[in-house]
Amino acid sequence: MRILILGGDGYLGWPTAMRFSARGHEVSIVDNFSRRRWHLEHSTDSLTPIRSLQERVDAWREVSGHEIKTYVGSIEDGEFLDSVIAEVLPEAVVHYGEQPSAPYSMKSRKTAVETQYTNVIGTLNLLFAMRDHVPDCHLVKLGTMGEYGTPNIDIEEGFIEIEHKGRKDTLPFPKVPGSLYHLSKVHDSHNIHFACRTWGLRATDLNQGVVYGIETEETAQDERLVTRFDYDQYFGTVLNRFCVQAVIGHPLTVYGEGGQTRGFLNIRDTLQCVELAVNNPADLGEFRVFNQFTEQFSVRELAELVQRAGTELGYDVEVRHFPNPRVEAESHYYNAANTKLRDLGLKPHYLGDELLRSILKTIERYKDRVIERAILPTTKWNPGELVAEMPAASEG
Amino acid sequence: MRILILGGDGYLGWPTAMRFSARGHEVSIVDNFSRRRWHLEHSTDSLTPIRSLQERVDAWREVSGHEIKTYVGSIEDGEFLDSVIAEVLPEAVVHYGEQPSAPYSMKSRKTAVETQYTNVIGTLNLLFAMRDHVPDCHLVKLGTMGEYGTPNIDIEEGFIEIEHKGRKDTLPFPKVPGSLYHLSKVHDSHNIHFACRTWGLRATDLNQGVVYGIETEETAQDERLVTRFDYDQYFGTVLNRFCVQAVIGHPLTVYGEGGQTRGFLNIRDTLQCVELAVNNPADLGEFRVFNQFTEQFSVRELAELVQRAGTELGYDVEVRHFPNPRVEAESHYYNAANTKLRDLGLKPHYLGDELLRSILKTIERYKDRVIERAILPTTKWNPGELVAEMPAASEG
Repeated sequence: MRILILGGDGYLGWPTAMRFSARGHEVSIVDNFSRRRWHLEHSTDSLTPIRSLQERVDAWREVSGHEIKTYVGSIEDGEFLDSVIAEVLPEAVVHYGEQPSAPYSMKSRKTAVETQYTNVIGTLNLLFAMRDHVPDCHLVKLGTMGEYGTPNIDIEEGFIEIEHKGRKDTLPFPKVPGSLYHLSKVHDSHNIHFACRTWGLRATDLNQGVVYGIETEETAQDERLVTRFDYDQYFGTVLNRFCVQAVIGHPLTVYGEGGQTRGFLNIRDTLQCVELAVNNPADLGEFRVFNQFTEQFSVRELAELVQRAGTELGYDVEVRHFPNPRVEAESHYYNAANTKLRDLGLKPHYLGDELLRSILKTIERYKDRVIERAILPTTKWNPGELVAEMPAASEG
Repeated sequence: MRILILGGDGYLGWPTAMRFSARGHEVSIVDNFSRRRWHLEHSTDSLTPIRSLQERVDAWREVSGHEIKTYVGSIEDGEFLDSVIAEVLPEAVVHYGEQPSAPYSMKSRKTAVETQYTNVIGTLNLLFAMRDHVPDCHLVKLGTMGEYGTPNIDIEEGFIEIEHKGRKDTLPFPKVPGSLYHLSKVHDSHNIHFACRTWGLRATDLNQGVVYGIETEETAQDERLVTRFDYDQYFGTVLNRFCVQAVIGHPLTVYGEGGQTRGFLNIRDTLQCVELAVNNPADLGEFRVFNQFTEQFSVRELAELVQRAGTELGYDVEVRHFPNPRVEAESHYYNAANTKLRDLGLKPHYLGDELLRSILKTIERYKDRVIERAILPTTKWNPGELVAEMPAASEG
């Protein structure tokens, strides 16, 4: 199958590209290296020493014998994207090509606008290019569980049947997201749904939980194939950040009470889910939503898990509650459905002590590369609110 | 009160500016003349001979003795808008400053991107400027009833209580809008809701029906104060277009079966509603949604009303069904709530034969200015679908 990966140089994009390539698919990548640029701008970096895209592709050819094609450019540039789609004629597009950080989107007007522009306009360009060149192509779009927020009812997969004043309809699940980044994904979902019902495109929206983990089957084959691993305040997801903090002796930074409950999954399961979606495409005209996570944890529970695994490995791990820079409920009802991917055959890698220890050990290898000042949050959701100062990292 | 009108040179913006000015408020206008520019690009024009913004403001000063301040620039330019908000320090912002046409948004990738960029990024810039300079200011934002689409349940005003698996929550009403323009308004609603709950801003989202009519108390005072009146395929709303067609002997263009039911209101009631919203502001932190229309009609019913009123005035009015360029249900359930503005005191001007005859007579005055080739739709929602050719206008 001809598969195009947007954002194919990223944390998930690069391992996904290798996975499909390893399976014999014809894989092409689009990337504009915005994640690398954002790190440059903040003087931060991936924990793992990732190679340039060309070095990665060369190493992959050497290791696997497979070729991955690359297109360098921005999907916000409609003419560029149009020409790529017209050349590749993909049968599936896996779309990771977005600004993925909530705190980055809340940093300033400039980054908020950049986030919504990049994500919404990029996806809109993609929908037009698919309509015009490959109307049968299956779009597999990465959404986020954060689109739903934390409603007081069970979260369903994309749609909900509503009975109201004696009548019934099945409608998009109402969303109350928690950041301008999450909102950009909600906008995307609405636009994609429209393209499916109006133009007859087909799409699977993968509302993904928080991803953790550092290694996949393919990245483990050669050090040059390693994927990026972020732990900084902007691009580090919570469990990855906790693991780095445990290894470097920094207190685990729990925001507020830590009762915030979310869905989580291992990076290996991200690849499994995307593969399942691609191999079992939506019907023409169908907009299908899968909730992509394997387990629910509160932030406090995660901190305790990392503390236990770290302690077993001889680290001195302290859990500390910090003033919450976000505006969010710190304890709330949370129960989200996630059966559709299991029904397609997902076999989860659950978060256990062994897995955590293996992540911690991998991090240990790159310990000297950790930039400690990048970890504590400086972006506040509501800068007008008085928030107590963060304790300095050295206090930990 | 200091009131800032975004899009204050437009069909509704200009009459709104005069209304608040007449009431003694300190009114400022922002506009970048994009509507005038779009008309230039299509070689079309307003039916009414509107004056330049400066001539309008001068005439208004002469007629009323009141001063309206003007700022020429785009709200997509965050620094420009920020500086205007910092200078005006508005207590209320009435936001009409968006690309308002569904067919224009569906014309091409370029116009789709322009629509979502102008509307979403412009509003995002506004929210940041309000947060930073006037956090107590009341945002009165023009939304559209089209955000809801045509669900099979009653449409409530913005929110709906959902009971699901034994639990309850009140959540945003799920939306299935019918064009990329309508989607941009849905995105706006989500972003504004977020700004209210995260930054404590206050906003009223006026989900407006289709506006008709040509005259308000203020525009009638002097010919130089006339507001624009569009009847072309992009910016003409259905009833206004039917009235022009009746006067020039063009068949009324009903798309498909004409069973599409929508909410409608008179331009005089738009001003009343906006005034009611401004005079009864939302609470700090509140995102309030009003459905702003006074009556529901199907397109077929409207055509018959115009046919009857036109015939009484001696016009030969034919109703003709054309292939529908839109992708939409042509007969469907439709029942939308609209009690909140009535509760605040709205006294509707209903659509009767007398009102229709008065609109037709006003149009008659400008009959020579009608550009007939601008009326029939050339933009199809789904250009891939085979649609029968439109009959040429001369056949009418």
